[in-house]
Amino acid sequence: MVGGGEGAFIGAVHRIAARLDDRYELVAGAFSSDAGTSQRSGQALGLDPQRVYADYAAMARQEAARPDGIEAVSIVTPNHLHAPVARAFLEAGIHVICDKPVTTTVEDARMLQALARKQGLLFAVTHNYSAYPMVRQAQQMVREGQLGELRVVQVEYAQDWLAEPLEQDGQKQAAWRTDPAKSGGGAIGDIGTHAWQLADTIVGRPVQALAADLASLVPGRAVDDNVQVLLRYQGGARGMLWASQVAIGHANGLRIRVIGSAGGIDWCQEQPDELLYTPLGEATRILRRGTASAGAAAARLSRIPGGHPEGYLEAFASLYSEIAAHLLARRGGGNAPSDAQFPTIDDGLRAVQFIETVQASARAGGSWITVPH
Amino acid sequence: MVGGGEGAFIGAVHRIAARLDDRYELVAGAFSSDAGTSQRSGQALGLDPQRVYADYAAMARQEAARPDGIEAVSIVTPNHLHAPVARAFLEAGIHVICDKPVTTTVEDARMLQALARKQGLLFAVTHNYSAYPMVRQAQQMVREGQLGELRVVQVEYAQDWLAEPLEQDGQKQAAWRTDPAKSGGGAIGDIGTHAWQLADTIVGRPVQALAADLASLVPGRAVDDNVQVLLRYQGGARGMLWASQVAIGHANGLRIRVIGSAGGIDWCQEQPDELLYTPLGEATRILRRGTASAGAAAARLSRIPGGHPEGYLEAFASLYSEIAAHLLARRGGGNAPSDAQFPTIDDGLRAVQFIETVQASARAGGSWITVPH
Amino acid sequence: MVGGGEGAFIGAVHRIAARLDDRYELVAGAFSSDAGTSQRSGQALGLDPQRVYADYAAMARQEAARPDGIEAVSIVTPNHLHAPVARAFLEAGIHVICDKPVTTTVEDARMLQALARKQGLLFAVTHNYSAYPMVRQAQQMVREGQLGELRVVQVEYAQDWLAEPLEQDGQKQAAWRTDPAKSGGGAIGDIGTHAWQLADTIVGRPVQALAADLASLVPGRAVDDNVQVLLRYQGGARGMLWASQVAIGHANGLRIRVIGSAGGIDWCQEQPDELLYTPLGEATRILRRGTASAGAAAARLSRIPGGHPEGYLEAFASLYSEIAAHLLARRGGGNAPSDAQFPTIDDGLRAVQFIETVQASARAGGSWITVPH
Amino acid sequence: MVGGGEGAFIGAVHRIAARLDDRYELVAGAFSSDAGTSQRSGQALGLDPQRVYADYAAMARQEAARPDGIEAVSIVTPNHLHAPVARAFLEAGIHVICDKPVTTTVEDARMLQALARKQGLLFAVTHNYSAYPMVRQAQQMVREGQLGELRVVQVEYAQDWLAEPLEQDGQKQAAWRTDPAKSGGGAIGDIGTHAWQLADTIVGRPVQALAADLASLVPGRAVDDNVQVLLRYQGGARGMLWASQVAIGHANGLRIRVIGSAGGIDWCQEQPDELLYTPLGEATRILRRGTASAGAAAARLSRIPGGHPEGYLEAFASLYSEIAAHLLARRGGGNAPSDAQFPTIDDGLRAVQFIETVQASARAGGSWITVPH
Repeated sequence: MVGGGEGAFIGAVHRIAARLDDRYELVAGAFSSDAGTSQRSGQALGLDPQRVYADYAAMARQEAARPDGIEAVSIVTPNHLHAPVARAFLEAGIHVICDKPVTTTVEDARMLQALARKQGLLFAVTHNYSAYPMVRQAQQMVREGQLGELRVVQVEYAQDWLAEPLEQDGQKQAAWRTDPAKSGGGAIGDIGTHAWQLADTIVGRPVQALAADLASLVPGRAVDDNVQVLLRYQGGARGMLWASQVAIGHANGLRIRVIGSAGGIDWCQEQPDELLYTPLGEATRILRRGTASAGAAAARLSRIPGGHPEGYLEAFASLYSEIAAHLLARRGGGNAPSDAQFPTIDDGLRAVQFIETVQASARAGGSWITVPH
Repeated sequence: MVGGGEGAFIGAVHRIAARLDDRYELVAGAFSSDAGTSQRSGQALGLDPQRVYADYAAMARQEAARPDGIEAVSIVTPNHLHAPVARAFLEAGIHVICDKPVTTTVEDARMLQALARKQGLLFAVTHNYSAYPMVRQAQQMVREGQLGELRVVQVEYAQDWLAEPLEQDGQKQAAWRTDPAKSGGGAIGDIGTHAWQLADTIVGRPVQALAADLASLVPGRAVDDNVQVLLRYQGGARGMLWASQVAIGHANGLRIRVIGSAGGIDWCQEQPDELLYTPLGEATRILRRGTASAGAAAARLSRIPGGHPEGYLEAFASLYSEIAAHLLARRGGGNAPSDAQFPTIDDGLRAVQFIETVQASARAGGSWITVPH
Repeated sequence: MVGGGEGAFIGAVHRIAARLDDRYELVAGAFSSDAGTSQRSGQALGLDPQRVYADYAAMARQEAARPDGIEAVSIVTPNHLHAPVARAFLEAGIHVICDKPVTTTVEDARMLQALARKQGLLFAVTHNYSAYPMVRQAQQMVREGQLGELRVVQVEYAQDWLAEPLEQDGQKQAAWRTDPAKSGGGAIGDIGTHAWQLADTIVGRPVQALAADLASLVPGRAVDDNVQVLLRYQGGARGMLWASQVAIGHANGLRIRVIGSAGGIDWCQEQPDELLYTPLGEATRILRRGTASAGAAAARLSRIPGGHPEGYLEAFASLYSEIAAHLLARRGGGNAPSDAQFPTIDDGLRAVQFIETVQASARAGGSWITVPH
Repeated sequence: MVGGGEGAFIGAVHRIAARLDDRYELVAGAFSSDAGTSQRSGQALGLDPQRVYADYAAMARQEAARPDGIEAVSIVTPNHLHAPVARAFLEAGIHVICDKPVTTTVEDARMLQALARKQGLLFAVTHNYSAYPMVRQAQQMVREGQLGELRVVQVEYAQDWLAEPLEQDGQKQAAWRTDPAKSGGGAIGDIGTHAWQLADTIVGRPVQALAADLASLVPGRAVDDNVQVLLRYQGGARGMLWASQVAIGHANGLRIRVIGSAGGIDWCQEQPDELLYTPLGEATRILRRGTASAGAAAARLSRIPGGHPEGYLEAFASLYSEIAAHLLARRGGGNAPSDAQFPTIDDGLRAVQFIETVQASARAGGSWITVPH
């Protein structure tokens, strides 16, 4: 692991996620560029002090040189460090699991894409919401045509943790996430990209054009904290995306509705075990993970029976386990498993392209811009 | 009443609304331009056949001439007839209660505004959703500053009754509502205008500019059935408006969220007795009509204790009763009651301006356009 | 109308209910035994002062003697007066619509039952919750066997308005409802009887035996304010009934679940337009009033499309309209309409028997007692 | 671990729970009394084959004899084996973590209680629902008097997985759970005991007397599948408990409401991150795990911010981590941590006493019986 030392949030999440299904063992880390902090973090995690590093480049080199060196690295640093860290490990021949957005520029993402291809290495991006069982159910329903021709995609990601200028009070998370140099964007990069990727996972077709309005609604904030985007999908569906970090009353309100000519679905991350499904002209059905009302795609990622809630950590763990299935296949030289899916550097690149297009539209006063592909 | 004969939907709603609080008596009507239909409708309603008309102009003249003639007319025809009918009654000196959108052109709305002023007559437009008790509660909270500086307004009105091309099968409601000549627009005119007006009622400040995407998603449809709009409010708040008639899974899903620097609120028309309110940094509260958690503005329009649901007809009746309070004051020559409010021709004109601006933006490919005031 | 003067709650509800569908006209009343109060109430309602009475017996005699005398009386007094008032009107040959519980003793209910039969008069009891469209839907589903063999009936009616000793502060509603002489019981008579009747309407088979625990949980209260009952139904189904007036957090929480071998249903009065239905082994469906997911029994009592909420007053109005259909049939000498149903004196008697059996069980320390039939 | 081999459900849950917070390492097991099955299970879990046993007694002896022997055993067998297995490990000086109900007889539970005391060993019973953060929040609120004097406790646990006679089709879980010799009772032992324990955790005072109705509603079933109990708590509060395995429409519907003179709370296991709290006369508040609206007791057991759902596995893991805190304290000879709590053999014994009292009441036709203490 690189990043995720004391005071970090997402590092601990990745560690639980990797451990939950017993498919990974954490054996080395560069948890902080401060040597003392990194060592303390490593010690708290029970690691061999020899394998706790302050310098990620050293870690990449030394682990690559060990006979029992790491097989994959998990990168959980602030966004602007993803690219150099990932590059170092790819160059050392180590698979990469990287937090999102994968980079802060399209250019960097392209570089990593090319490098991963050249090295023949796996590159996963932890757009974790795509691994919820009922998101996979939704994806399967769209693919199988249960919704008919897609017409409308409404996605939103509303939070309220930045409703006040926390970054001015020294809160660490708030500080780097609202620093354009470290985050590559505000709400659009942090959560707008999750919303886009969730929609992308389910609808399976690209956004052709968009018009976006970015705002910094908290006085003094250096990045956007509210994003509103109109979307036109390939094939004619229309969409809206709203991402906000100032939406008082919303904790982690990621929600998507996809409506076609034959049915509509509705999923909220805060009640992830349920998917509302309305076939045209019939009653709405509450499809539930872990019951007969959910199909094979959801069942694959389900651990316990319906009514025993699985949540955020389980979905994150599922993403790690999907990646593990591919890592194992590669270890044995076998074929990639056909059903285990995860967002790759290709998806990560497209996410960064989405961010840049939104930012370009906003700079142009909210004009419509074609999304590159 | 003009309109609302056999087969109509909204006429019966207006009649129940007017009757519910026992403030009106229906004594005359031109329910249809077909004399037989109008007479049958009038007979079913127990009216004196002498006061059942086929011609609204004759009704206006003759009722104005009677000593016991009507005091106000309720106009519930298709949209394109609102203007000529309202004009006839205004010219005859009769107060007007008119369904929305008040006209199909801004020009007509201006004409009615001027005529009502000149005649000194009351002109109410039945944007009925503004009369729900918890909408008034929301309005009061914004006015009193409980939400702080407004930042975000998210409003949506999602229905699914036009997910199929009903207008091609002779369904009467669908036929005129999807005929541009009769409706003046599709989803934007029928329900988008409700969504706009609900937001307008609560936030109390105008939209400055908007960018809109209109779509006809059902093949062969002559009007828009899906509307998506980005909004910039005076004072800096950002908003989104979505109105759709093809949103399978949504019956009459009018919902608004208003978020400020000090709190956020959330109201859904399908559960109208509740208003979610989250003060910054505190637990969300469920404010309920008819309980101590609702304030004076909600209590004024509440008939029965909390937990005994009031719904659409009660809110529509409240609108009629608010108008009745003004009609009574005018009858006695007194001052208008300060607390009884209803949408006037001024609001109706602004709603039509909103529709036209949305249509203009859409024609211009979704460009940002300033809303006239 | 008898009762329902100034300060009363339920009288105004009955008046709106009778008026909503335009099937009744209020022409006479004894709104209070105080002549001045009764006259003021009558005047506020626009009645002819000649037909406003202080003495219900005089009203019964005089209205019976008028050629345009009332056709039916609505009795909305405190419970202990139901029997003498109903008797007076039955003896005068006038149909009776009476609030629930119909009497405070089984003996009185039997007397009224016999008298109504002898006089050949209609006697309706306003157990209003049975007239919600989705309650009728539930009844129809049970009758048609969609739930299979009935197994479990869970019904509850939880309120919190008596969580404090309001009766000690002179609140009028609280005062008579907690006075055993006027109410004939506390929570069991006021709301327990509604819960029983709702279950009775839907399941259509009698309770054979019960064991009950009554408690007065607010210090100093003279009647029960919390009731818990175990039920054994004819045919083997088991049930529980909870009625409470001290359940802080519940406004008017009447809820019923009925579970059989082939499916289960769930209905809450506070969201009356929805009925959850789960067929064995399938997804839960949200059946909605006013949509294709509701059947004929619900559609009969539905006024407006789904998503436009109908509530308590509409259901109460439906009950009045069901009664009106029978009154009209009797007026014309025709047959009773086969589909218009309402609770009669027979149901009212059974409700009082239920109350007395619960009270007997509680007096016996919660022993099981057979319910008489 | 003893039990939890191939085909078992709860064993895997315990393993994830123990692993999630990285406080345990699984090193030995007797996963099945069939040696081949046990070895296969152990191999799948990556254990040293030397430490995989078929005989739990051998495991207890041999692990106790090893210098690196297990510190605690997790017992996840069918209920009737809990007592002999626990006894063997206690006698070998090994701490015990045992699934619930701890035994199938009070006698056995007393034996284990005495033995654990004599040996000075920790004995935890995995009544896992008590470790949800918002259950701890509820417990804290009751302890601190926020609800005032307790008045009503309504608890239910409704499932539908046994709505059909699965045990007649060879389903393994259904088979032993409906075999009285193996389970010690049906719904009352399997889930009624969870419901009782959840209430016990929150309200913190004992049930004094109860009257119970047990039923086997699925034809041919050998144990109860529906349980209804009236409760009288010490101090005067009244309660009801419903546990059902035939409640079609309910997956794992454990819900509790606790109402006092100053407020009421409502918690559902299927939405475990929320606790509804209504102070007397005020709006209902939605308290959420991971936000400022939750207190210290909830925060202790919370891993990730509000809105990122934690579920069943996280709560189960918290229980294991609470136990780990005590195991660590004992290892170091230190004091037990004052805040880390878990159900002990004392609680387990009381749960079995509750089961037996319910069964005794049911055998006596539903009479009231005093609960022994």
